[in-house]
Amino acid sequence: MKVMITGGGGFIGYRLARKLLERGTLAGADGAQQPIERIKLLDTAFPPRPDPRLVCVAGDLAAPGVIADALEADTAAVFHLAAVVSAGAEADFDLGYRVNLDGTRLLLEACRRLARPPRLVFASSVAAFGGALPAVLDDSTTPNPQTSYGTQKVIGEYLVSDYSRKGFLDGRSLRLPTIVVRPGKPNLAASSFASSIFREPLNGVEASCPVPESTGIWLLSPRRVVDAFVHAHDLPQSAWGTSRVLNLPGITVTVREGVAALGRIAGERAAARVRFQLDDRINRIVQGWPVRFETPRALALGFSADPDIDTVLRDYVADEGIELPAA
Amino acid sequence: MKVMITGGGGFIGYRLARKLLERGTLAGADGAQQPIERIKLLDTAFPPRPDPRLVCVAGDLAAPGVIADALEADTAAVFHLAAVVSAGAEADFDLGYRVNLDGTRLLLEACRRLARPPRLVFASSVAAFGGALPAVLDDSTTPNPQTSYGTQKVIGEYLVSDYSRKGFLDGRSLRLPTIVVRPGKPNLAASSFASSIFREPLNGVEASCPVPESTGIWLLSPRRVVDAFVHAHDLPQSAWGTSRVLNLPGITVTVREGVAALGRIAGERAAARVRFQLDDRINRIVQGWPVRFETPRALALGFSADPDIDTVLRDYVADEGIELPAA
Repeated sequence: MKVMITGGGGFIGYRLARKLLERGTLAGADGAQQPIERIKLLDTAFPPRPDPRLVCVAGDLAAPGVIADALEADTAAVFHLAAVVSAGAEADFDLGYRVNLDGTRLLLEACRRLARPPRLVFASSVAAFGGALPAVLDDSTTPNPQTSYGTQKVIGEYLVSDYSRKGFLDGRSLRLPTIVVRPGKPNLAASSFASSIFREPLNGVEASCPVPESTGIWLLSPRRVVDAFVHAHDLPQSAWGTSRVLNLPGITVTVREGVAALGRIAGERAAARVRFQLDDRINRIVQGWPVRFETPRALALGFSADPDIDTVLRDYVADEGIELPAA
Repeated sequence: MKVMITGGGGFIGYRLARKLLERGTLAGADGAQQPIERIKLLDTAFPPRPDPRLVCVAGDLAAPGVIADALEADTAAVFHLAAVVSAGAEADFDLGYRVNLDGTRLLLEACRRLARPPRLVFASSVAAFGGALPAVLDDSTTPNPQTSYGTQKVIGEYLVSDYSRKGFLDGRSLRLPTIVVRPGKPNLAASSFASSIFREPLNGVEASCPVPESTGIWLLSPRRVVDAFVHAHDLPQSAWGTSRVLNLPGITVTVREGVAALGRIAGERAAARVRFQLDDRINRIVQGWPVRFETPRALALGFSADPDIDTVLRDYVADEGIELPAA
């Protein structure tokens, strides 16, 4: 089978691609695992020297014809991760709608025209939630986003559900917790700090934390979110019933708890590299995000969270080959 | 102030226009009532000989330039009612998205470019709800539409909320119950029967009911929905808090109860003109609609439902000048 990953040059998309190469199969429409023939990545940028088994297509999802040209007629699995991130969509209203809404619609229309309806896994976000929130959110909490990014993700969910109901594709939307720890550099996402406060100190440099240390983060590791994408794809259509949208499991960690774990894993000198510099603009966005969830539906469907923040940090250290100071 | 009503040639839109003429004022941004200078109606068709005080613009909301041309720079109030109805949007997927989603976006973009952010009241629908529903829906029930029309309405709500949050306009979305009794002819809406079973017998002709008589309808009269549009407009922005979406109050009436009321108002001969001819396609859509609601937020904000179905029918008879047989 053929696979397309939008945003496949990004951190999660590219990790997902490598996972699929390693795995070699995905479930077909009949539920049986089928060999993956080809994985195509659509993105505006790619890692240097990508794996030669991956087909990289450079292009703007929302530009005319790009996705229709890139999506081969017999594509069976689509993972839709491409997006302008939260602070980016908030800073440039038109760009956010063009990529996150128009781009998603172009992708869904291209899927509709394929020979057979593909499975499509859509990366949504807990940025769907906002406004007056309960202390603990659950599967019945109504999205009320307070950012354009969150609005665009919720609209994407409704589009994926309607295209699925019409039989144009077989979609599943996953609301991702904040992904921690992302490697690389800070980006425009308001959640960027949630990785920076671990990544920079582990690399021996200082990190600036724009929110108070009491701030809670609902998070999931890169390993687990990649597993979730694969699992969401492979679940049969019947597992989804009348709702194609799922809050993924995660764990709640305060910045204070995270820094303490950093100290346990990498020593007090590393933990001391986190500096608090309140940024009102970022903080206002982050404080509107939900912190505690119950996710019984996802757990019943076989999705799982990381056991604790220490494991998240140890996995990151292992995955990135970071050398820690001797204990 | 200047007022625009999209769908202003339709039944509700035109009644709203006449109500505004009669009233003569709407609340300005400061809350004080201001005289209405001009009411412009945008629609594809209009009643014959419309009131000369109304400015009728014939055009397709979703066609390039139409709304941008029609919306005057100093428009202060916009009522957005234009839509392809439920069965129509289900039958023609592309047309539904073009008018109900693209048309709404064009309108919101045109509002964004006005000299001052206008107030905008958006006609949404309880077709927003579907799937696995609680016995009684309330303000916390999450929309899970099972039609493209419902999906497009929910997406419109999220867009109106995001444009409002950004300060591009001051929006309010009302989820309308089924409006009963509509005059005129049956239309493509799956809810068309809910008026036909009253209207046709009152006109001395037979009506075909495509759903069983145990079917419940969550309904609101034309008089009350017009009042609701005006009230929603005139409420201050502060009344809406972090949610711009509201389930309007209504009453729950079964077809059986409705036919009994028809007998009380117009005699048993009229009631006997309702014939039951099950239509699977219509029935499947209607049975997915919610029937019972609690609407504490709307009631607290000063919206109200009809007292009972007898009053709804008597108001219809009075408004349409129907002569009933002597009791």
